[in-house]
Amino acid sequence: MCSVENDTIVALATPVGEGAISVIRVSGKESIETLNQIFVGKSTLSNAPTHTIHYGKIISKSREVVDDVLVSVFINPNSYTGENSVEISTHSSTIIVKKIIELLVNLGARLAEPGEFTKRAFLNGKIDLAQAEAVADVINARTEASLRGARNQLDGILSKKVDELREGLLSISSLLELELDFAEEDLEFLSTAKVVEKVEKIIHEIDSLLRTYSFGRVIRDGVNVALVGKPNVGKSSLLNYILKESRAIVSETPGTTRDIIREEVSIDGVLFRLFDTAGIRITNDAIEMEGVERSRGVVKEADVVIFINDVLDGYSDELYNKLKELTEEKRIISVMNKIDLNRSLKLKSDVHISALNGEGVEKLFELLKVKSIGGENYSEKNAIVSNVRHYNALKNAKLSLENAKQSLYDMMSGEYVSVDLRLAEEHLGEIIGKVTTDDILNNIFSSFCIGK
Amino acid sequence: MCSVENDTIVALATPVGEGAISVIRVSGKESIETLNQIFVGKSTLSNAPTHTIHYGKIISKSREVVDDVLVSVFINPNSYTGENSVEISTHSSTIIVKKIIELLVNLGARLAEPGEFTKRAFLNGKIDLAQAEAVADVINARTEASLRGARNQLDGILSKKVDELREGLLSISSLLELELDFAEEDLEFLSTAKVVEKVEKIIHEIDSLLRTYSFGRVIRDGVNVALVGKPNVGKSSLLNYILKESRAIVSETPGTTRDIIREEVSIDGVLFRLFDTAGIRITNDAIEMEGVERSRGVVKEADVVIFINDVLDGYSDELYNKLKELTEEKRIISVMNKIDLNRSLKLKSDVHISALNGEGVEKLFELLKVKSIGGENYSEKNAIVSNVRHYNALKNAKLSLENAKQSLYDMMSGEYVSVDLRLAEEHLGEIIGKVTTDDILNNIFSSFCIGK
Repeated sequence: MCSVENDTIVALATPVGEGAISVIRVSGKESIETLNQIFVGKSTLSNAPTHTIHYGKIISKSREVVDDVLVSVFINPNSYTGENSVEISTHSSTIIVKKIIELLVNLGARLAEPGEFTKRAFLNGKIDLAQAEAVADVINARTEASLRGARNQLDGILSKKVDELREGLLSISSLLELELDFAEEDLEFLSTAKVVEKVEKIIHEIDSLLRTYSFGRVIRDGVNVALVGKPNVGKSSLLNYILKESRAIVSETPGTTRDIIREEVSIDGVLFRLFDTAGIRITNDAIEMEGVERSRGVVKEADVVIFINDVLDGYSDELYNKLKELTEEKRIISVMNKIDLNRSLKLKSDVHISALNGEGVEKLFELLKVKSIGGENYSEKNAIVSNVRHYNALKNAKLSLENAKQSLYDMMSGEYVSVDLRLAEEHLGEIIGKVTTDDILNNIFSSFCIGK
Repeated sequence: MCSVENDTIVALATPVGEGAISVIRVSGKESIETLNQIFVGKSTLSNAPTHTIHYGKIISKSREVVDDVLVSVFINPNSYTGENSVEISTHSSTIIVKKIIELLVNLGARLAEPGEFTKRAFLNGKIDLAQAEAVADVINARTEASLRGARNQLDGILSKKVDELREGLLSISSLLELELDFAEEDLEFLSTAKVVEKVEKIIHEIDSLLRTYSFGRVIRDGVNVALVGKPNVGKSSLLNYILKESRAIVSETPGTTRDIIREEVSIDGVLFRLFDTAGIRITNDAIEMEGVERSRGVVKEADVVIFINDVLDGYSDELYNKLKELTEEKRIISVMNKIDLNRSLKLKSDVHISALNGEGVEKLFELLKVKSIGGENYSEKNAIVSNVRHYNALKNAKLSLENAKQSLYDMMSGEYVSVDLRLAEEHLGEIIGKVTTDDILNNIFSSFCIGK
C-alpha cells in the first residue's frame, strides 16, 4: 500500500463545454481552509457542518468578484475521497473556472492528477480497487448493458465474491499453519482430503468467474464485427439497414477511413462496432492493396465476421477459405443476401436475409448475440469479470491453487501447500486492492479523466 | 408581468462531454417530493433542511440502482429560482443522466426550456431582467474583459443606475401630477425652471450611459477586424505574427472559408476576430468573383479595417479609394509592411511594421484598441451598457424626455409633460424588467442554453 498523501488537490469535475454550471472539486486536509481564504459569504466555511451548502462570492487578490458560487462542504471521513473536501459550483465559464483554480493553486493547492480523487477514495478505504476501476467504467459506459455491468462492479458484487474466496483460502491456510506450529505434537486440524475438497471448491468458483469474462468483456467493451463480402453483395445495404433498425445509434459521426466505414450500434444494450470492409480481393494496385491489408486487419481483430454472399453470385467457397486463414471458423456467420430476388434457391448459409426489406435480419441479430456473448446472460446479481486485470489475477490464483492441490496429492509438507494458498490469496487480493503496488495504482488511475 | 408557473422542470445543468460528474437541476414547488419518490438514502428528502446535501441512490421502477448520487436541497425562497429546488450530482454519463431525467419526467416533471431556471429567478424577484441577461453573458464570455463586463452587470451596477434615474423621474412626475390634482388652487410644487433642470440632468446621465455602449458592445461581443491588401503584401504573415504574439489565442480551430481565414485572439482581454480576406481585386473569374464579393462583405461589416501595403509595392491609393467606398475612413488603419527590407522609405501610413520581426506591431495593437474602444476605459465600478436592448430603451427614454422638455419650453399643460416623463420611466423600466411582456421575455430567454 502506498502512503496516503493529503495535500490539497483541485480540478474541474464537470465536462468542458456549453452549460449552465461547472463544478470544481477540491480535496485534502486543508481544502476547506484554503477555499475559505478566497470565499466571502454570510458565514465562514471553517465552522460549516459536513454536507452543507454555502452561497457566497469568490474574491481575487485585488478584491475583484470572480463569481458568485455555491460551496458544498464535506468533512472527513464523510466525503468521496474520505478527506475534507469542497465542491464549488460556478457559472459555466472556462475563464471563471481557470481563475478560481489559479487562485487555489496560488494558495498552495495542486492540480489533481487523472483519477486522483478516486485514488484517494481507495487509499482512504472508502471503496476497494475493483470498485475504483468501476467508477471509470460507469463514466465510460456507452450502452445500457455496459453501464449495468459497471454499476454491478461499483456496487461491490464482484468484490464481495472475491473477498469471500479470499476469506475461504485464509481460513484453510491459517489452519495449515497452525498445524505447522504444532508439528511436533502431530496434530491434524484438517484432513488432507478435506483440504483438497475445499481447494477444489474454490477452484471451481474461480472457474465460474473466469467463464463470465467473455460475456463481461463484451458488455464492457463492445463487439467488433467485420462485414466481409465481394463487391455488390450488399454490405453497405445491410449496414444501413442495421443502423436504421438497431434500437439506438450510439455514434452519429462514423469514423470513415479510406476503405473501412465504422458505425456503432446498440442492439439490446450491447455495443456492436460494425466495420464495412473493402472486401478481400487479389489486386496489384498499391493503393487498393493498402485497403485490402487494412481489411485483413479488421477481420483478424473482429470478434464476429459477417460473411455476406448474394443469391445472384451464390456462395463463394474461395472467399470463405480465405477468411478461415484469418479468423476462427466459429467466429464467422455466413449470410445469404437478396433473397427478395430469388426465394427458391436454398444456398448454404447460417441465415438468409434481404437487406432491402429486412427479412431475416432479426435472426442475424440473434446469431450476432450468440456468437459474441455465447448465448449466456448473467443477471446483475451475478459477479461478472469484465476487466483483463481481474481476469489475469483470477487465472494466477487458479494456477497457485492447482499447485497447492498437486502438493497435497504429492503429500508434500504443509509449508509448500500453505505458500501456494497464500499466493492464491494474494492474487485475489490484487483484484480488490488488498495487495497492490504504486505501479499497479498508477497504471489504473492514469487512464481516468482529471477531476474524477 | 406574466404569471409565475411553478410546475416541476428538469434539465442537465452541466456541459455534455467527458467529465467526472454531471449535475441535473430540478425546480418547482413539488421538486423535492418528486425526486424523493426515486431516491433511497439514509433519510427522506421531504424533511431535509435547505442547503443540505444527501447521499443516496436513484432507483428505477424495477428497483434497479441507476446511480449513487449526492442531492442538494434548496427550499423556497432560498434557491436560484426562488422555488423549491434540488440538484442531483451523478457520475458523468449521458446514459445515467438520460435515465434520471426520464424517471423524473415519468413522475410529472417537464423538460425545462432554454433559460427557464433564470426566467423563474427573474419572475420570482431573485434578480432583475438586466441581471438575468448578464447570466447568459457571463457564461458566454470569451475573454477576461467580456467576463468582467458581464459580472459588472450581474452584480447590478447598471440596474442600480437605471433604477436611480427611474426614481428621479417618478418623483418629478408625481409632483407634476399632484399639481394637476390641485390645479384649481393654482399651486406650484416645482417651478418649471426646476423641472427643466431636473429633466436635463437625467438626459445628461442617459447620454453618459449611451456613450458607454460602443465600449460595452466591443467588450461583450468583440471587434471584427478585416485584413485587406494586395496579394503578397504580408496579410498572412501579419496574421500569424499576431496569433503568436497576442496574449491568448481564443479559438484554436479557425473557421476557414474558401478565401477568408478567421482567427480569434484576445489582446489585453478584448476579443478581436481577424478576417484575412482575399483582397479586393477586379476579376472576371466567377469563382474568384464570389471570393471577392465575400471579402467586400467582410470589409463592410468590420469594426476596423487593417489596410496593408508593403515597401516594395508602395502605398496603393487605388485600393484605399475602393475601401473608402465600403467603409468609413475613420475605421481604416493604414499599415506599411516589410520595413525590414527598406527602412529609409518614408511612405505614408498610420504605422510602419515588419510582420517578419514584429517591429511596430505593438503600436498597431495600440491603434487597434483606440479605433475599437475609442481609447476609453471604464472601470468595473461604472455602469456600462453592452446590450442593444438596453441601448434602445435608453434612446427611447431620452427621446421621451426631449419631448417633455419641449412641452415645458412650449408652456404646455403639465399633463403633456407628465405623460412623456411616465413614458421615459417605462422605457427605463424595460431594462430591468419593471415593465415587460411575454414577447420580450421569450426573446431574451430563448437564447439561453437549456439548464440555465
